[in-house]
Amino acid sequence: MAKANKLFHLLLRFLAFGSTLCAAIVMATSHEKATVLNISFEAKYSNTPSFKFFFIGNAIGCIYSLLVLFIRSSGHSFGRVILALDMIVTMLLTSCVSAALAIAYVGKKGNSHAGWLPICGQVTEFCDHVTGALIAGFIGVIIYLLLLLSHSINPLLVSKA
Amino acid sequence: MAKANKLFHLLLRFLAFGSTLCAAIVMATSHEKATVLNISFEAKYSNTPSFKFFFIGNAIGCIYSLLVLFIRSSGHSFGRVILALDMIVTMLLTSCVSAALAIAYVGKKGNSHAGWLPICGQVTEFCDHVTGALIAGFIGVIIYLLLLLSHSINPLLVSKA
Repeated sequence: MAKANKLFHLLLRFLAFGSTLCAAIVMATSHEKATVLNISFEAKYSNTPSFKFFFIGNAIGCIYSLLVLFIRSSGHSFGRVILALDMIVTMLLTSCVSAALAIAYVGKKGNSHAGWLPICGQVTEFCDHVTGALIAGFIGVIIYLLLLLSHSINPLLVSKA
Repeated sequence: MAKANKLFHLLLRFLAFGSTLCAAIVMATSHEKATVLNISFEAKYSNTPSFKFFFIGNAIGCIYSLLVLFIRSSGHSFGRVILALDMIVTMLLTSCVSAALAIAYVGKKGNSHAGWLPICGQVTEFCDHVTGALIAGFIGVIIYLLLLLSHSINPLLVSKA
């Protein structure tokens, strides 16, 4: 039972690593050149602070997941420290996905009250890329939530796993 | 020592209740009428989905904090359930504060690449209100992070407190 629990945790960590890596790469490669009314411009993630935050947050989440994978698979235990770091990384990922989603929503729908027009009609490929990154980032958040909830369901794992 | 821990937890819960209540009320009362180029308009929180999400998230956080305060002060214990709910509420608060902050940043600075102009020059009072709500919301997130970290430092509290 303890071995099955450990394997389940390692699988979740690996999935978290994969999804945060995907999210960071897909966001970092999202750019598109477009011409509107003879004015040429380039849409890229680094033009928007929230998208940069998304990339940095997911890159940190990815490196952290990889480090914990190595630590856990080598048999070492830093139970409470890892639980505390899990909480902080989950909040970081939640924060950067939410901020990016809020901006992506304005990019898609605009905000007529503030006079902000939607831009996805002009840069559809860029918007599709960002949507893909957001989906991967969201999956990462769900996996980290599952990891945290598994700690709360079985707190003994904290000191054993 | 156990009594001091319990009092510290109750104090944190009370502060979390106060900050989420303030955040929800200050956001809900943020509106301003302005006239630009003879066009009259009203800025209010309900015009922006992220600000509505901020209000709803903090209202849920506020009600939850109050409920846990009653449960804990009446001597009942639902240790693991409350730890799991604490994690979910912390993520909800982190998410709604981040989303609102991302939009408030565009309102303050604009985004020249997307053609979104800043609006805080026209509705300064509205922006000040939103800033106040964001600060209160951010304090709520920090308090919930402290509550979660105190669980991870002393996991025995989960089943005792």
